[in-house]
Amino acid sequence: MTLCDIGNTTVDLFSEGVRSKLDVHDFNPDTLSGAVYYVSVNLAFNEKIRDYRNWYDVREFIDWDKYYSTMGIDRIMVCEAVFDGVIVDAGSAITVDVMDVGVYQGGFISLGLRSAQEAYARLSPALDVSFNFEVDLTIMAQNTPDALTVGFLAPLIEKIEGLGKPLYLTGGDARLLSRFFTEARVEEDLIFSGMKKLIEKGSKC
Amino acid sequence: MTLCDIGNTTVDLFSEGVRSKLDVHDFNPDTLSGAVYYVSVNLAFNEKIRDYRNWYDVREFIDWDKYYSTMGIDRIMVCEAVFDGVIVDAGSAITVDVMDVGVYQGGFISLGLRSAQEAYARLSPALDVSFNFEVDLTIMAQNTPDALTVGFLAPLIEKIEGLGKPLYLTGGDARLLSRFFTEARVEEDLIFSGMKKLIEKGSKC
Repeated sequence: MTLCDIGNTTVDLFSEGVRSKLDVHDFNPDTLSGAVYYVSVNLAFNEKIRDYRNWYDVREFIDWDKYYSTMGIDRIMVCEAVFDGVIVDAGSAITVDVMDVGVYQGGFISLGLRSAQEAYARLSPALDVSFNFEVDLTIMAQNTPDALTVGFLAPLIEKIEGLGKPLYLTGGDARLLSRFFTEARVEEDLIFSGMKKLIEKGSKC
Repeated sequence: MTLCDIGNTTVDLFSEGVRSKLDVHDFNPDTLSGAVYYVSVNLAFNEKIRDYRNWYDVREFIDWDKYYSTMGIDRIMVCEAVFDGVIVDAGSAITVDVMDVGVYQGGFISLGLRSAQEAYARLSPALDVSFNFEVDLTIMAQNTPDALTVGFLAPLIEKIEGLGKPLYLTGGDARLLSRFFTEARVEEDLIFSGMKKLIEKGSKC
């Protein structure tokens, strides 16, 4: 069985514990034999695999009463991976979602680290500086890079910590963010854990 | 005496309690007789008024040991207006600064409401939605507009409230933000109060 997360630019594959990432244009679905379970936000790719009998859309396993209809498919997958906790997926956006004893409680979306820095840079050349990830978020800043880093990260980290549940970090910036939390587990394959759990649940029904 | 805040696109004037805003290209400094005290981030304009004997740069009144060298002049002015409290200037960026018994403690810079919304929109067409200013920031969101609004505002508002000092809001979005705070005073002319206090202090020395 292969698990497959299809974005607009990349295809992320997970098979027998091994993960590989490809440019979506370099990926040929014919190369995968056996069952492929996928989530996709790429409409063109969906069209391409429509007639493949070994490709299964994990979207069809979702209990949509648990989530809201415009919720991103990746967010739903990481929620499915966690029975009770806060899930932070730090990519181009940072999504924060709360699961309470298997029930989705809602969440929120912050900008990703890169998009936040780009947005500051757009405001003024004086704010076109990199974040300082060595900064102490508990104190007020006394220079521009610290002022932006504290301004973006301190409220967010404190809000997440305040949710008071076990914390799961995933996504490209998970490891970078983890240093700011007193306790958090980084789980890089969380989306695939969620897909796997959902498929197993679905096939039991 | 006229007080004058010169930006890159606008000139904001304050004279005998009356405030007026002009496009910087429509403003002729010859129209002002008597003393003009100004702050400016507009290098071209500074060049233009260099030889005016009745224009005084308020920058020269600042005790730079109190602040950091790259700190925006507008931020310093609103800090000078407040002896003890948290000052939130909500414009293109949202600056948050702490004054403690006359001593600057530092601060931080968040994106402004418009720049945050634009940054979300750039991430994905699905996130190109307006903030919902009617949202309850204390609960997790269950739809996209609320998820963005809570994601941007809830951490920021909670961080500011947590600073535990009297709160002063100024800038174009001050009134809009004020609804989210349990107690805050909106002071639209705070920059001019700061300029006035600093000039009076300076002329006493």
